[in-house]
Amino acid sequence: MDEICVLAPATVSNVVCGFDCLGFALNEPFDEVHVRKIPEREIRIVNRDEFELPSDPTKNVAGVALQAMLDAVGADFGFGIEMTKYIKPGSGIGSSAASSCGAVAAANRLLEDRFSKHELVEFAMEGEKLASGAKHADNVAPCIFGGFVLIRSVDPLDVVPLGFPPLFVTIIHPQIQIKTADARAILPKDVALSTAVQQWSNLGAFVAALAQGDHELLARSMEDFIVEPARKSLIPEFEAVKAASIKAGALGGGISGSGPSMFMLSKNEKAAKNVETSMQQVYSQTGVEFKTYISQVNPAGIVFL
Amino acid sequence: MDEICVLAPATVSNVVCGFDCLGFALNEPFDEVHVRKIPEREIRIVNRDEFELPSDPTKNVAGVALQAMLDAVGADFGFGIEMTKYIKPGSGIGSSAASSCGAVAAANRLLEDRFSKHELVEFAMEGEKLASGAKHADNVAPCIFGGFVLIRSVDPLDVVPLGFPPLFVTIIHPQIQIKTADARAILPKDVALSTAVQQWSNLGAFVAALAQGDHELLARSMEDFIVEPARKSLIPEFEAVKAASIKAGALGGGISGSGPSMFMLSKNEKAAKNVETSMQQVYSQTGVEFKTYISQVNPAGIVFL
Repeated sequence: MDEICVLAPATVSNVVCGFDCLGFALNEPFDEVHVRKIPEREIRIVNRDEFELPSDPTKNVAGVALQAMLDAVGADFGFGIEMTKYIKPGSGIGSSAASSCGAVAAANRLLEDRFSKHELVEFAMEGEKLASGAKHADNVAPCIFGGFVLIRSVDPLDVVPLGFPPLFVTIIHPQIQIKTADARAILPKDVALSTAVQQWSNLGAFVAALAQGDHELLARSMEDFIVEPARKSLIPEFEAVKAASIKAGALGGGISGSGPSMFMLSKNEKAAKNVETSMQQVYSQTGVEFKTYISQVNPAGIVFL
Repeated sequence: MDEICVLAPATVSNVVCGFDCLGFALNEPFDEVHVRKIPEREIRIVNRDEFELPSDPTKNVAGVALQAMLDAVGADFGFGIEMTKYIKPGSGIGSSAASSCGAVAAANRLLEDRFSKHELVEFAMEGEKLASGAKHADNVAPCIFGGFVLIRSVDPLDVVPLGFPPLFVTIIHPQIQIKTADARAILPKDVALSTAVQQWSNLGAFVAALAQGDHELLARSMEDFIVEPARKSLIPEFEAVKAASIKAGALGGGISGSGPSMFMLSKNEKAAKNVETSMQQVYSQTGVEFKTYISQVNPAGIVFL
């Protein structure tokens, strides 16, 4: 094999009650990443999209992630990447994670699957560190593992793939920019223990509901007492989108990542489409441009073409 | 049926990372509760043990719980209770919950199972309110439902029975008194958001580990960053008991309820017995009297004789 092409999916992190630990993978949108081995000890990046991301590998998340892998190998070779991104940077659905994960997953196949999924997540987290200043795994882990994953711990890394029933996701991406730093700064530093208990009771119930395939319990447990109340003011019409979505049949949902995208989970495709229509109705009155997506929760993660 | 006799088991609440929301039932110790219907509109309590609990039904948790049930029925009759407690009050393994739950479960059978398990938990919580000043469900729910349960919410009550693998429990009950009020007062009112995230990541992983029967993940997720650090000073040799237990083969464990009992979970009975021996070795050097118990996690809860 000289060249590997993969599709690296968008992901939703900070799933309602699961701030900083729970994420899942989508079927679409996705990025298309081609990686080939080259004899030179370097990383060459060609961007085939409109987003004007840096081609300097030390300033590109895919480059940084691949360099971590090359360092681990002690390689006397390099990689060439061709990246076609369909996930807009800054959308809140794991655009940087898709770049890093696509690159390391493809490169690993060229290295005959030398590294485990946990190791690929470690490499991809170097990309996340470049993008946001902190190593976090709640987008890269679902991108690599697929499905729903819980990050029990980042250091040492402990990724827990979760059982889950078929679920459909509706995403609305308002075309506004929220800086991750602003979304972080708006969070409380401390929370009341009683509020933390409410939050973790919901998270425990959410994980149980996934394992048991209990859609009603899933709906009841999608309450966020801490992060959503702080961040929802950053997203125009957040409350209206949520209320209309639930009226249209969504089980629940919230802010994807640190926004501005919002996601809603539904039991079936029909409900997910009704939710999309209701989101479009709310947003068509705002003057804010937006895109919507419908996708199943993607059990596979990276797809090798 | 004129009279029903039940065994109401001890329970462990505040299971490590699951403060105020996670509990499980033991096989032993248990209380023996006889309930019969009487024509008089009153509750008569006879205590057949050494603990000198009040026989005035307004001051006895079983009496208060049964009165809540009689009120819900609009009954023109009453109940007579004979209570033989083997679970010492104040032990931290759900003594008051066993009294209340045994009483309402037996009475419900006399009423031809008119009430659901959720409703029985509601009645029994009135007993908990008498005992501790607050309605909480993390002992009464596992006592009624059996197995591991998660309390997603107390008001409205939402009890989630969890799937779990076979697990053995070793309990050590140091014969000292910890006032629930003191154990509450020692807790922090607020916690750092970053610490809360660590705690709920562990709780999510613990629930997933139960569902997946993954003992190694169960062990890794039994870490408490909030409650145990605050409360462990109340229990002599807490750290030594924990360290010796894990060395002897326990998966992990912590303070049962608000103490003074400690519990450890093990994969099999042999490990649980080794853990008991190691606990006894630590405590025999303290001069504090103690009792130990070994039990499987009890999937049934209340047993009808």
